[in-house]
Formats: sequence, structure tokens, C-alpha cells
Amino acid sequence: MNKIIKTEPKTLSGFMELLPEEQLLFNKLKDTIKRVYEDSGFFPLDTPIIELSDVLLAKAGGDTEKQIYRFNKGDNDLSLRFDLTVPLAKYVAKNYYDLTFPFKRYQIGKVYRGERPQRGRYREFYQADIDIIGDGKLSLINDAFLPSVIYNIFSELNIGKFTIKINNRKILSGFFESLDLEDNITNILRIIDKLDKIGVNEVKKELSKMNIDDVKIDKIINFINIKGNNIDIIDQLKNLKVINSKFKLGVEELNIVNNYLKQFNLNEEYIQIDLKIVRGLDYYTGTVYETFLDDYSNIGSICSGGRYDNLAKNYIDKELPGVGISIGITRLYDQLKRIGLLKKEDISISDVLIISLLDDLSYSIEVMNKLKELGIKAQLYMEDNKIKNKIKYATNLNIKYVIFVGDEEYKEKTLTLKDLVSGNQVTDKIEIIVNKLKNI
Amino acid sequence: MNKIIKTEPKTLSGFMELLPEEQLLFNKLKDTIKRVYEDSGFFPLDTPIIELSDVLLAKAGGDTEKQIYRFNKGDNDLSLRFDLTVPLAKYVAKNYYDLTFPFKRYQIGKVYRGERPQRGRYREFYQADIDIIGDGKLSLINDAFLPSVIYNIFSELNIGKFTIKINNRKILSGFFESLDLEDNITNILRIIDKLDKIGVNEVKKELSKMNIDDVKIDKIINFINIKGNNIDIIDQLKNLKVINSKFKLGVEELNIVNNYLKQFNLNEEYIQIDLKIVRGLDYYTGTVYETFLDDYSNIGSICSGGRYDNLAKNYIDKELPGVGISIGITRLYDQLKRIGLLKKEDISISDVLIISLLDDLSYSIEVMNKLKELGIKAQLYMEDNKIKNKIKYATNLNIKYVIFVGDEEYKEKTLTLKDLVSGNQVTDKIEIIVNKLKNI
Repeated sequence: MNKIIKTEPKTLSGFMELLPEEQLLFNKLKDTIKRVYEDSGFFPLDTPIIELSDVLLAKAGGDTEKQIYRFNKGDNDLSLRFDLTVPLAKYVAKNYYDLTFPFKRYQIGKVYRGERPQRGRYREFYQADIDIIGDGKLSLINDAFLPSVIYNIFSELNIGKFTIKINNRKILSGFFESLDLEDNITNILRIIDKLDKIGVNEVKKELSKMNIDDVKIDKIINFINIKGNNIDIIDQLKNLKVINSKFKLGVEELNIVNNYLKQFNLNEEYIQIDLKIVRGLDYYTGTVYETFLDDYSNIGSICSGGRYDNLAKNYIDKELPGVGISIGITRLYDQLKRIGLLKKEDISISDVLIISLLDDLSYSIEVMNKLKELGIKAQLYMEDNKIKNKIKYATNLNIKYVIFVGDEEYKEKTLTLKDLVSGNQVTDKIEIIVNKLKNI
Repeated sequence: MNKIIKTEPKTLSGFMELLPEEQLLFNKLKDTIKRVYEDSGFFPLDTPIIELSDVLLAKAGGDTEKQIYRFNKGDNDLSLRFDLTVPLAKYVAKNYYDLTFPFKRYQIGKVYRGERPQRGRYREFYQADIDIIGDGKLSLINDAFLPSVIYNIFSELNIGKFTIKINNRKILSGFFESLDLEDNITNILRIIDKLDKIGVNEVKKELSKMNIDDVKIDKIINFINIKGNNIDIIDQLKNLKVINSKFKLGVEELNIVNNYLKQFNLNEEYIQIDLKIVRGLDYYTGTVYETFLDDYSNIGSICSGGRYDNLAKNYIDKELPGVGISIGITRLYDQLKRIGLLKKEDISISDVLIISLLDDLSYSIEVMNKLKELGIKAQLYMEDNKIKNKIKYATNLNIKYVIFVGDEEYKEKTLTLKDLVSGNQVTDKIEIIVNKLKNI
């Protein structure tokens, strides 16, 4: 055979590529999200990864634009999508007359950002978005429905106590408008955000440096110090007597959303109004969400979103208000894996490995067919190999049980089931073995 | 509000982007393939869509290279994958020491080819591959196992009678070697392929033009005229008395695979040895497969693959024989849709739409929670709208049933279920309604 010059089989940095057992774990995460989204009545959507740059960058700018994977092919200036929201906007505008509103869709897909790779940052990563788009208007009940979907996902994933924090952008904007500080919101919020780290005095000092007078600083500190359960917070907001219609509307919206929230099947301890939750300032216009794991708040928000006034204004002359939430699955997987909340030992591609002790595999194949018919995920080891190596294959793949098929079993029409963890072994009729496996 | 200049919301030609109801149908196809692959013990794999051009094009050339989406980002020369086999080869070489062999993996993902777009041809399309890779060797039973997986998929999809055609490349190569015609196989096969269209005399004429003598032409015609059931064909091949070791080995392999095939739970009428099946000549080295819908053979093979000697020779100095099969889902969906074997009316995102006749949605939300708990995919119409429009939402989404929640239902703790197809309507306790829905 000719000697071939080998190419090094490299994968690009910033691109996640998992070993099989890890991929299985990743897919369980992804598939749980998908199932809950579908069970909640969201249509799947699958838009191209490549779009015309003109279309994709209709609105983008600054940092986003620098990170884009952009290139020419033939006469076309093309880009890889950097999120799933812009393609959604394009899609809704393009298909406006064929869609039924409210349009509820989910999309789980890869997006691309050419960031400098670092731990937990990926250049190719999955986002899992849901959005509900109204035609002209959209009821606030949707703002309560979305957190209930997210609640179901994270409850099922069994990753410990989490808190969905909720706020309304109108409250923030209105409050700062009432102080004539609306132009400085971004900077003020950046300072406030450091409250837990640097303490109230340092925050006051930094606000002073922005030429904000002491009366206003006190009002800001009072505002961000509002605490309690959700109803308390709403009451205190009302008691602030802020003279601003936007503020009042925001408090009213938050109140309505909070009331609806209780009706969806969720534990109220998992939902918390937090007046410091902001999200990207220029996009969201009402309810905003962020989600934190209580025991691992340092990993940041694992799921965020909010309400926006007009999804597709760059493409179509229609008012399309919506509310959406996004989970960054690739980063979430990475974090959950690292803190030990996802374990590859907990999952396997098959329930049982069939190991033939006979050279002729016919009966083993028959057994596999039967087991699969009865709902057992059975796999047959088909290579000529030592028993020891066949068992090693099962342990490598985290398969917890093996079934031996030997002369005895063939004659008696039985199977021998071995629990690889306990070492226990039992020989019995196939139906009884199946029942044992099903009860585990 | 400012008038914004609108960008036309275009999608690139050659990129499939479906309406919601169609996407649901597409996903059903994709999810069925995924589930059967997983139930058969194949690990999921998810490699990046972008790879270093050096890695991806280690072997490629000619037509493939021209179709590649290739571009620079920073210092990197990058390409989008054009199939899932090259990434698999890279992956196995890269992770050779971490993998357990035989390595059984499936991958369902998008690939990119910048072909001239035409009906049924896509630039972005899904492939759904399974492969089994051995370390040094791989039993022939795998060559029989793969068609059984494919059989399960197409049986479940309920798309009518299909035939998995099977052959062995060694038979072809050995036969033409025995005639000293091995260098002309490609051209000869191209002529033979026209047999059904142009008839045996024209085929003979064209073979003559290639300076093949009449004795050999007769042998070729005899060879390709071999017909009958699978056992007949193998017997006739043996009776040909071809003096060539490769030919003999091929017949022996085909015989073994055919015998194993019968043991996997499949209908033998769906498997047919066909000596004219070839597949890409330079890649496959043993068993080859193509799959046709009996009533729609004109759409060509819907699933193909075969056995290869060495998966990753461009990346690693290990013998890695394998066998694999690929389904081009995007094209398959397109074809099945066009010939009417997939109907969007047959599928819906929800089992039932809850329509509240009350302004207060609390009880309706409670009903939705309850229905979901009991395993019904229930969706609540949450907007303020006329009943007529709420029902229209259900019919637009192919939701077959609606549940009305009015004053009466609230007081009596009942529900009114309406079948939108028959128009029948019944009011009863929630558990009875759920049972009705589950029995449908």
C-alpha cells in the first residue's frame, strides 16, 4: 500500500466537538429543551445558517459586525448568522401573509461569532430560542407563559434550585426619566450593578462623579434597595409616587405578569422580581428575564429574554410585538458539566449489551429483535472477540447490563442477565428478564 | 415613529426554508431517522460546520473542491463541510485513543455545496449518516445490520413499498479483472446502465466501439442479465466459473451478508441483490447499497452507502474499515412532499386548542396545566379575539380539536370538546374528555 502523507486531524479552537458519551449528554440537554418547547405549542423553525449580508446586517453594527463570518461566493456577499433573532425577523417579514398570528416558534441551531476564544466562549454555539409574535398586539399573558416554559425545562433537567428573575424595562426608563437622567441609564446601571461588590458608599461616590445631585442619588439608592417578595416589591414601587406615565405603565405590566405567573403550574419560589435586571438596552421594551442557578450564581444568567415592540421593522412596515427567551446551550452544557450537574455516567446509548457465547449469532440476533420489540434498547456485540473484551465494550459505553446468550440459554430459550455494577447475575425466560429491565 | 428604510427579507436560493406546518413535517422525518438510529445503538456525533480547509480538503479534488464554501477569517483558511464522512474520518483519527471500537455513530447535520441551484438540488442540505468503524477489522454481519436499520426507518415512515438493493464491489471489479477490462469499468458500467432504456443490441454496439471483443461482450451481457431471487443470483454467480480471487471473495461476502440479512427482523421482499449497483467507484470496496421506492423509482436512490477498507488514511496510520449509509433528508423531504407521501394535514403541533369564552383566563390555564399533566399536548389561545378567529387559529394550525371553557364549564368543572372535522361536540368531566382524546 502506498504511504500517504498524513494531515493533522485538527478541530478549530472555539468549536465544541465532544466525545461520544459527552455528546449523548449534550443531546439529552438539547432534546429536553426541544421537547418542552414543542409540548408548549411552539412550531419548529429552521432557517439557513448562511444569509445575504445585506439581510443579516440590516440592523447590526459595532462589535457584532466585527465578529461576523463574512465572505463572497460567486456574486453574493454572504454571512453566517450570529443569532436566531435576526433570521426570525427576516422570516416573519418574508412570510407575513402565510403565517398565523400569534406566531409561536422555537429554533435550536448553531450561530457563529468570531470572538477571541477563551474558556466558556465559543465561536460556534447552539442557541435555543422561543418567541411569540403578535400581529399588531400581543397579550401580557404571554410574558408570564414564557417563564413557565423555562421553569418546566430547568425543573426537568434536575440541576438544582434556580431563580427566574423578572423586571420591566419601562419601570427603569420611567424612573430615570422622572429624574431627568434617561440619557445616562447605561452608565448608572453599570455602577449600580457593582453594589454587591463595592458597597453603597462607593456606589454613591461614583454616582456623584457623574454630577448627579444627592437628592437624586438617594432616590436611586432607595429604588434599587427595594426588596421583598414580588407583591411587596410591586407595592413599594407604587408607594414611590414617581410621576411618570412610563414608570406607572411598567409597574402595572409587571403586576399583571406577576399575577398570571402564579396561575401557570410553577413554584413561586423560583420566580423573583429583581429591579436590577436590565438586558440589552435598545432592544427590549417591557418585561425582561434572566435566570440564575442559586448555588452557582457566578456562572451568570443561563437563560434570558424579554418583550420587544417591533420585531421586523427593518424588513416590513407592520407592528409585530413579541416576547422571547433564549438559552445558550453550548455554554450551558460547558458550565453544567464543569460544576458536576451533568454526568456522563448517568446516561447510556443502550439499556443492555447482548453478548453471544456462541459462534453462530442467529439466536442472539433473534434475542435482540425480541428485546427491541418489547421496548428495550438492546445492542448486540457483533465482532469476534474475547468475552472479557465484549464486557469492556459495555463498561466503556456506560451500558449497565449485559445479556449472555450461550448453549444453555439457546436450548432452554432463556437469557442470562448480568448487572455490571453489582455483579449480580440471573438466568430466566426472556419475558421475565424484560420485566426486570423495565422495572429498573 | 421614524420611517426606516426596509431591507428586502430574502432567503438565498438553494437554501430550504419552510413554512411552520411544513417544517413540522420535515422534523417528523428527521426525528424518525434520529430515533431509529439511536435505538439501534449509534452514538450521536456533532462536528463543526466550519473546518480548516487543509483538514477538510485533505482528499477532495475536482468537482467537490469547486463547490466548497471557502473563505479566510483572521489567519485561517476555512471551509464549510460538504459531507459528514470527511469530518467523521478526522474525528476518528483525532480521538482514536479515546474511542471504543467498533465505533457506531450517527450524525444528522447540514452540509454545503455551492452547486447551481435547480429543482431538488440544494446548496445547504441535511445528511443523516450512520457508520460502524472497526479497529483493524469489522465483521460482515455489520453489512447486514445497516440495511435492517434502514428497513426500520422507511417502514415506520410509511411511504410505501421500497427495495434496498445490495451488491458487492469485489464481484464487479473481479469480473472485469477476469476479462482484463478493469481499467474501463466506469465507462462499461455507464453503458450497461442504459440497458433498460436503449436495449441489449445498442448496449452491445456501444461496447464494441470500446474495442471489446464479442466473446467478452457476451460474457458481460450474461453477467448483467443474471436475475432471480437472492439465492438464485448467488448460485448463478458461482456457476459463472470466473477465475478471479476477488470475484470469488465478493460472491462469498455477498452470500454471508445475504444469510445474515434474513435474521434481522425484515421482510425479505424489501431486499434485492442487484449486480448493477455500483456507487462511487474509488471509495467503496465491498458491500454497496441503494434504496428505491418501488412506485417512484424515477426519483432515484433515497439512501445509499457501502463498505470501505480504510476510513481515515489521510489522517492516521491505522486500518479503520467501516460500513456506512447516508440519507439525504432535504432532498428526500422535497421528493416525498411532491409525490404526496408526506402531507402536512397529517400532523399538528398540538392535540387540542383551548378556547376561553370567559375574559378571565385563570380557569383555562388550570385546564391547560391539567391536560398537559395527563399527557395531552394542549395549547391555550391567549389573545383577546372573537371565537370565530380563535377557531380559525386552530384550523390554520391543523389542530383537530378545540376545548371550550365557558361559564357553564367553569361552574360544573366540565369541558366542551369539539371535533373540528366532524363538527361533533360533547361536554363532560375533564378525565373523560382526556380519555376521548387519548383514544383518538
